[in-house]
This record gives sequence, structure tokens and C-alpha cells, in this order.
Amino acid sequence: MKKRIVLALGGNALQKNGEATAEAQKRIATSVGNKIAELANDYEIIIAHGNGPQVGNILIHEEQAATDKAPAMPLETAVAMSQGQIGYWLSQAIDNSFLKLKKRKKVATIVSQVIIDRNDPAFKNPTKPIGQFYTEKEAKALAKQNNWVVKEDSGRGWRRVVASPKPIDIVEKQSIIKLVQEGVIVIAAGGGGIPVYRTKLLRRIKGIDAVIDKDYAAECLAELVKADIFVSVTAVPNVFINYGTPDQQPINRITAKEIQNLIRYGYFKPGSMLPKVEATIKFANKGGIGIITNIDNLDKSLKGNAGTIISKSTTAS
Amino acid sequence: MKKRIVLALGGNALQKNGEATAEAQKRIATSVGNKIAELANDYEIIIAHGNGPQVGNILIHEEQAATDKAPAMPLETAVAMSQGQIGYWLSQAIDNSFLKLKKRKKVATIVSQVIIDRNDPAFKNPTKPIGQFYTEKEAKALAKQNNWVVKEDSGRGWRRVVASPKPIDIVEKQSIIKLVQEGVIVIAAGGGGIPVYRTKLLRRIKGIDAVIDKDYAAECLAELVKADIFVSVTAVPNVFINYGTPDQQPINRITAKEIQNLIRYGYFKPGSMLPKVEATIKFANKGGIGIITNIDNLDKSLKGNAGTIISKSTTAS
Repeated sequence: MKKRIVLALGGNALQKNGEATAEAQKRIATSVGNKIAELANDYEIIIAHGNGPQVGNILIHEEQAATDKAPAMPLETAVAMSQGQIGYWLSQAIDNSFLKLKKRKKVATIVSQVIIDRNDPAFKNPTKPIGQFYTEKEAKALAKQNNWVVKEDSGRGWRRVVASPKPIDIVEKQSIIKLVQEGVIVIAAGGGGIPVYRTKLLRRIKGIDAVIDKDYAAECLAELVKADIFVSVTAVPNVFINYGTPDQQPINRITAKEIQNLIRYGYFKPGSMLPKVEATIKFANKGGIGIITNIDNLDKSLKGNAGTIISKSTTAS
Repeated sequence: MKKRIVLALGGNALQKNGEATAEAQKRIATSVGNKIAELANDYEIIIAHGNGPQVGNILIHEEQAATDKAPAMPLETAVAMSQGQIGYWLSQAIDNSFLKLKKRKKVATIVSQVIIDRNDPAFKNPTKPIGQFYTEKEAKALAKQNNWVVKEDSGRGWRRVVASPKPIDIVEKQSIIKLVQEGVIVIAAGGGGIPVYRTKLLRRIKGIDAVIDKDYAAECLAELVKADIFVSVTAVPNVFINYGTPDQQPINRITAKEIQNLIRYGYFKPGSMLPKVEATIKFANKGGIGIITNIDNLDKSLKGNAGTIISKSTTAS
């Protein structure tokens, strides 16, 4: 049986040097698509991508050009829009790679709702800045008008902040599993998923403005689809200790317990490497293999010859 | 075996009285979702929805608030964004209806690329107005800058016009079929699909700014998935002759040949009832049943007791 892998593609994986046109992002999607298509004979593949820069631009456009006739879409719907956008670019790129490689494989993007807990403590202290910058006065007026929380962002101005709750479940999981079982490469849970919660009495699903971390959502997906390997695909070939200093040291094979200790010593930055390390540890603790690497080392890492490979115990391969 | 049906949901089905907020559109999605969820035990269902008002607003926002850092997305990508948006609203509505009806059914939206012919005659004479209105001067400057075709629109100002080519194939058809075979309600080919064509030499798929008619795309989907019934769901319970005049007459059961003759006499308006009638005729001529009705009469029409029901010969039921 082929091993089933879930790839969490970095949010900036499609935007380089701030080039945000559809054309520039499709060009990068093409090179990412090539690398993934090459793996399609050897693995069952599910791709969960980030959407940071893309949903940011959607929100800026929606908010700045909003009128009564063409009102701005809320964040949760903007995430759905970014899933359509990025899913289209990635699936087209992978389809064209299959054609080039003469593989008769298919790819499909499933619009995905990720369930969170309305009582997640993250809602008490929203920290994730989204959308455009405002002056303090504008920000506070908008906060009052729209029931937003706004905060000053590192001296660059004021922004809306939203909660980043933990993913619990994925509404479309069965459809994702059915397609991957049929050999389809599935793109799902894009941008961490459209954040939804279950209402108290009726258990209905309902959207909520929040941002689910893409690595946590991808790891949740990896557990739900019973993946063998979870890979957080980022900008570096592996995790480093003392990254960017003369003492920089790559981490290759490591146990979940060992790297958990490195977190305790404060080695990894929140909002950067930390969520990737935490997500891979969580997956390793469930018995799977967690990998952190970049797209160029993806194939080698899956074979055990590159990347940071995290398992529950060192004997796992 | 359950009959397989493809529903083409009218582009205005989610916007009423120009209420374009996400909240208002979700409310209408809920009532549409209820009607569809009720059919889920009796039929295999695929939904292709329109996106006219939604993609129009996305384009207005994208174009009006575009900057170098946050450039406007092109029409083809905006269609993908609208598939995420509307697919999310509809699937959430249907999911919640299933919960209310205690049905253990699933629904999934597949981002869909629809293949057209780059040499379709429609590209020689673009007619479909999209996006915002401009002054003549603005429109002509934008046309030069972006290689657009612009036209004066019924005295209301100038707009960009794009081609409306015929759909030929759907890239994601196998995934759609696999899910519907597993009992999943599939939302696909939204907004007529993301328009793509195959490049001449390498046969790669590539997006192109165009608008594919939603009824033609849904009919193409119905043929590809070998549906038994194709329903164009619109604002009226059935097709009328002399609609809106004192001589108004409903059309109930009719053969493809008979209604084709009514087209020849000029009974149906282009851009309104004509594409729906043409799409259902095409489906009926392939041996299926074509229905034109509204959402309230959908169930009755499927049982043969309402709507305009078009078949190749009157003996078909």
C-alpha cells in the first residue's frame, strides 16, 4: 500500500518577493506543482496550503471598495474565496505537471470548513492581525461599528486582530478520504480552513471570523485521514537550533520528546517555526512521522535522507 | 438505482432585492439548501450554480482597490474565488439541512475548470458585460492598457465585455463522478466554471478571461456524469409562451422538436429564458429529461407534476 501523506504548504509558498499578481503566483504554483506531481506514483497525497498574503489582499480589496450595493465579504467567506483562488492555481499546475510527466492522475480542490470550539480560549485574547492598516482613530471607529478588536501592530499602525482557535474536525473529511482512496491528489483545508463552529442547541455549523493556523489544520487533517506522514513544507531545508547565528545547527532525526524539550528552552519563534514544530510533534505523538523541510528537499525527506524528521521514538523509520 | 440529477441554480438564486451581504445570501442559501436536502434520499444530486452578481462584486472590489502590492485578480481567478464563496454558503446550508432532517448525507464543493475552445467564434465578438461601469474615456484607456474590449451598455455607461464560449469538457469530472457515486451531493462547475483552454502544442490547460453560460456548463456536466435529468432552476415555475402578456400560456410537457420550433418563432429572450431552453433541448436530444422550473416546484417537477418537461419524444417519462 502507498503511504498517505499530508503536505502543509507554507502561506508564502506562492508569493515571492511580494509579487502578488495572479500571473506571478501561478508561475510559482507551476514549480511547486512539478515537485508534487513527481511524487504522485509513490504516495497518496493531500495538500493543505496557507493563504496569509492572499486572504490579506482579498480583505483589503473587499473592505476598501465596499459599497451598500457591493458590501465587503467577512473574513470567513474571504477564506473560502482564497481556497477557490489558490486551489485553482495549484490544481491547474499539478494537472499540467501530470500531462508533462505523462501520468494519468487527477487532482481536485475541496472547499473545506474546519470546526473550532466557540469557547476556545483564543477568543478571549485575539492576537492574529488581518487586513489593512488604519490610523488609531479609524481603527477604533471601525472596531465600534463592526464589533472588531483592534490593536497597534509593531509601530506600523492599527489593525484588526482575530482569534486563532485550534482545529477540531473537518466537515468535508469523508469526501477528502474518498477521493484520495481513488488516487486523486486532494487540495483541502486551504488557509487553515473556513472557520466554523457548532451552535450550542441545534449543533448547526456556522462561520466565524477567525484564522486557524495552517499547520495545525493540516495536522488535524492528517490525523482525520489517518496519514502516515505529515510534512510542514516551509522555506528552510530543516529546523535549526540557533537559526541565523554562528552557532546554527541543523536538526535531522529527533524524537518528539527531544524537540519538545528544545521548545521549552525557547529555541523556536512563535508565529514562525514554533507552530510547525508543535504540529509535527502532535502528529508524531499519535504514532506518525512528522517532517519539516522545504519543497526542494521534499522527496529526499520522505525517503528519510533530508529534512527534520520527528517520530515518537528514534526506532520509527 | 437512484436517478442522477444535475441542477443549474440561477445566478440570482442567492441574491434577492439586491441584498448582497454575506448574511443575506447565506439566508437564501439556507432556504435553497432545505429544498435540495429533502431530495437527497431519492436522487444522486449535483449542483451547478450561477455567479453573476457575486463575481460582479468581486471584480468591482478587485479593480477599484487594486494597488501594486495588492493587484486585481483577473476574471478567471475571480470565478474561482466565487466558487469558493458560493460553494461554501451552499454546502454549509445543505449540511445544516441534513442535520435538521437527521439524514447522514454529505456535501462537497469541487473547484471546477471548464474547458472551452480558444477558437470558439465567441472570441471574435465578445458580448458579455462584466465588472463596473466607466466613462467612455476611462473605458477606452483601460481597454488599451489591459487589452480589453469595451462597449457602451444600454445608455448606462461603458463596460468591459468578454466572450461567452461554449463548454466542452470539465477537468475535474472524474472526481465529481466518484463523489456522487459515494452518495455525496456535489457542488461543481460554479459560475459556469473557471474558463480554461488547452494550449495548441503542449495541450496544457490555461485560464482565460471569459464567461461560460451557467446553463450550458451545467448541461455539459449533466452529459459528462451521465445524468438522467437536467433541471434549470430559475425564477418561474415553468416556461411560458407570450410571457408577461394577457396571452401568457404555460408550457408543461413538450418535445425537444416542438420547443425548438418555438425558439424559431422568437418566443424566448436571449440572455434570459433562451439559454435555459437551449440547454434543456440539448440534454433531451441526448436522451435525457430536461426540466425548467423554480425551486418551489423542483420536487413536483422531478415527479412529472410541474415545470416544463422536455424530452426527445412525448413517450419518454
